Amino acid sequence: MNFQVAVRVPFGLVDPAFAVQLETLSANFFVEALARNAKAAFEASQLLPSSIRETALKIIADELDKNSDSILNANREDLKDAQRDVDAGRMSKPMLNRLDLGQPGKWEQMVKGVADVADLLDPTGIISYASELDENLALYRVSCPIGVLLVIFEARPEVVVNIAALAIKSGNAAILKGGKESNRTTTELAKAISEGLRRSSLPATYIQTVQTRAEVSALLALDQFIDLVIPRGSNELVRNIQNNTRIPVMGHADGLCHVYLHQDAGHEKAVRVVVDSKIDYPSACNAVETLLIHRSLLHTLWTEVASALLNAGVQLICDEEALSAIPQSIARANPNSITRSDEQSYRTEHLDLKLSVKTVDSLDAAIHHINTHSSHHTDTIVTESEADGSKFCRGVDSAGTFVNASTRFADGFRYGFGTEVGISTGKIHARGPVGLEGLVIYKYMLRSKDRKGHIVGEFGAGEGKKRYKHTPIDTSAVPF
Amino acid sequence: MNFQVAVRVPFGLVDPAFAVQLETLSANFFVEALARNAKAAFEASQLLPSSIRETALKIIADELDKNSDSILNANREDLKDAQRDVDAGRMSKPMLNRLDLGQPGKWEQMVKGVADVADLLDPTGIISYASELDENLALYRVSCPIGVLLVIFEARPEVVVNIAALAIKSGNAAILKGGKESNRTTTELAKAISEGLRRSSLPATYIQTVQTRAEVSALLALDQFIDLVIPRGSNELVRNIQNNTRIPVMGHADGLCHVYLHQDAGHEKAVRVVVDSKIDYPSACNAVETLLIHRSLLHTLWTEVASALLNAGVQLICDEEALSAIPQSIARANPNSITRSDEQSYRTEHLDLKLSVKTVDSLDAAIHHINTHSSHHTDTIVTESEADGSKFCRGVDSAGTFVNASTRFADGFRYGFGTEVGISTGKIHARGPVGLEGLVIYKYMLRSKDRKGHIVGEFGAGEGKKRYKHTPIDTSAVPF
Repeated sequence: MNFQVAVRVPFGLVDPAFAVQLETLSANFFVEALARNAKAAFEASQLLPSSIRETALKIIADELDKNSDSILNANREDLKDAQRDVDAGRMSKPMLNRLDLGQPGKWEQMVKGVADVADLLDPTGIISYASELDENLALYRVSCPIGVLLVIFEARPEVVVNIAALAIKSGNAAILKGGKESNRTTTELAKAISEGLRRSSLPATYIQTVQTRAEVSALLALDQFIDLVIPRGSNELVRNIQNNTRIPVMGHADGLCHVYLHQDAGHEKAVRVVVDSKIDYPSACNAVETLLIHRSLLHTLWTEVASALLNAGVQLICDEEALSAIPQSIARANPNSITRSDEQSYRTEHLDLKLSVKTVDSLDAAIHHINTHSSHHTDTIVTESEADGSKFCRGVDSAGTFVNASTRFADGFRYGFGTEVGISTGKIHARGPVGLEGLVIYKYMLRSKDRKGHIVGEFGAGEGKKRYKHTPIDTSAVPF
Repeated sequence: MNFQVAVRVPFGLVDPAFAVQLETLSANFFVEALARNAKAAFEASQLLPSSIRETALKIIADELDKNSDSILNANREDLKDAQRDVDAGRMSKPMLNRLDLGQPGKWEQMVKGVADVADLLDPTGIISYASELDENLALYRVSCPIGVLLVIFEARPEVVVNIAALAIKSGNAAILKGGKESNRTTTELAKAISEGLRRSSLPATYIQTVQTRAEVSALLALDQFIDLVIPRGSNELVRNIQNNTRIPVMGHADGLCHVYLHQDAGHEKAVRVVVDSKIDYPSACNAVETLLIHRSLLHTLWTEVASALLNAGVQLICDEEALSAIPQSIARANPNSITRSDEQSYRTEHLDLKLSVKTVDSLDAAIHHINTHSSHHTDTIVTESEADGSKFCRGVDSAGTFVNASTRFADGFRYGFGTEVGISTGKIHARGPVGLEGLVIYKYMLRSKDRKGHIVGEFGAGEGKKRYKHTPIDTSAVPF
């Protein structure tokens, strides 16, 4: 491999700028071979029945258990470094906890997850359109894998196992890049996955991992081998990837969700939905960040909602009217928890116990504010009116439009998909929580059984020409 | 509008470089307003029933007929300029013909096309997933428009009408840019469409047009307003757009299609499929560009196929073995029509009466060649074996994988979609010929009818916690 020759040039003999070029060059050589192998593995797997993929997942689960000692040892090494970073104030304690595979039940859950994915319905081979174009000429639209996925994620090392399982189940090859904090752990996890693949009939290069940002950068240029990039991490990570590749990107940068309290909102309902949307898991992308309140509620429902939020430890960032409507008694009791908003407040994803609050005059104004400020993730209305709920659902251009339900329901498991690849705020392919269906596309298979084959020259408007039949075919599987 | 102030700066007073900056700046101001209007028009339209869109299409058809004189006059002006370009050798005669709306039947077909699209099934409001998550908590996945489309096309002016109709039917706002050769015609067509929209209940800015490349460049930066770009034109146009925007692009750059003649291919079938795939419309993206032949057929079927192709005026660009297998008598009769191929021949989309020919040793070799050289558009095998046909369909990673049928069947009308937005060689969202379904996505609507609304905090594994029901709901429409 050329790459090995390149990196063997002794560093001291070249000037540093050239060394950087060499590093880039060697990353390029290495990842091109890697991406080429991924594509070849994907193509080879297309000729295998999907039951092979199910079996491979069960072998991988077994292989993980067999190698639990070495994986958990590597994890403890990562944790030691992380602890040093926490002590030095370079890492948060919750982040360290997310790295820890040794927490009670976490290992078992990770391995069981692989077996669970194996048992999900196969998303490939499903017919979504079948038509007889002519006698003995049948067209089938059949779901199939997308190809090679590049998945980039941060922190939690078990994601490598989770994503590998989803890719294998849906018939996609994958290249995975985890966070640098868990490098030792993901390396050991990847070894176990590769060993499992070697024991199966799938190519061992079906799932591969890379470790460095330089490798990711080089991979983002390889649109001839990689079909879809799925970033799971910070806004910055996602934006950076979107700006630096021609490959389609599926994911979400922001999760700026809204709850709108309509003039007829029931009080108990409103308090429950707003508080749950904010406090159930404040750092999640489906937590509410902005509360819109109909002006008529400022001196009634808003007082109740504000009290409940303040009691739950939420800081309120209010416009002038919502702020001055808070009774003096409540304001005095929470002097540091109520502040004035500015326009930027309504474009901020707090990911914290903070909530921007804005007064609006109508449902139309609420819809307009949401469409211009939302990240098109999930937005909720609280209302007693079926017609206004329906108008909100149609008028708000988001992946999730909810009536009287917490924004936190926007989740693949809660929706019943059994698993979740991620949440997409894009407008094509897959939107909202993405299950296995988001990892497949379709192809058209057309088969002539005519003795002379089928040509288009025989069809047309003229005399002696054939006409297309376009008769639906009732089938759930390709009959060949 | 700021843009007017900017362009009023007298040209003579500023240096030319600054004038270019001003031009760019004014294009930016203009198109941002345009894109903002498109998004607002899209959002407003979401609150209207889809029958409004059907009615609008019928009004537009009427408005086109009412304005046929001014449109056809403008078209004659465009044709005069085009004729000058043809005379000066700057434009081909077929291109001029494509510009001509006055050709017999073309006008009527264009106007009837609008009414036909109005009568197609509404692709929006279709439920693809519905589940009861809990008592009184129902989730619906509902198809809906994507948002604002930017469609860039070349030559034929009637495409503006065709695309406008598809956008309106599917509920998307659109910004259209035609070829500069048909500027006068598309301007008049756009006026009639706008007038039709003004007479309907849809916003008049639902369909807008731009005229310059600078405007397109500025629009490609506005991913906050534009959701999908659809380029229809040359490879260069498509590549250029893909490289210069963060907005998803749907389309195809190349159409490099293959026919593979398997060792058991029936002779009559093979000749018919190969010849039709090549000569039915050589400049189409679904015409065959490379023929793969199993080695065992070189001295039998290949002779017949080569003769038929040469008789049809096709130039053969052959590898060594296919070339030397052509009998001397045939070779001598066609001295200028048989040449030697090189590796580049198998990466070339000829779009002409030319065909690259390559010998392969097996079905696996054919699949591998196609997967590494094809543009993943449409590829065909000719075989008598059901198993080998099936293997080809699964193993070839293309939008269309055909058995014993011409590559030319890859077309929305032939597939029975009633219309075609374009053909996509992408791997996500929509693949192959794209009908109205390719212009929609879905959103999740979740509605609680519970007296206290629904919050996630009540669900979980612990005691007293609720469990998700995930019971399928049998419905074809959102019940609110």
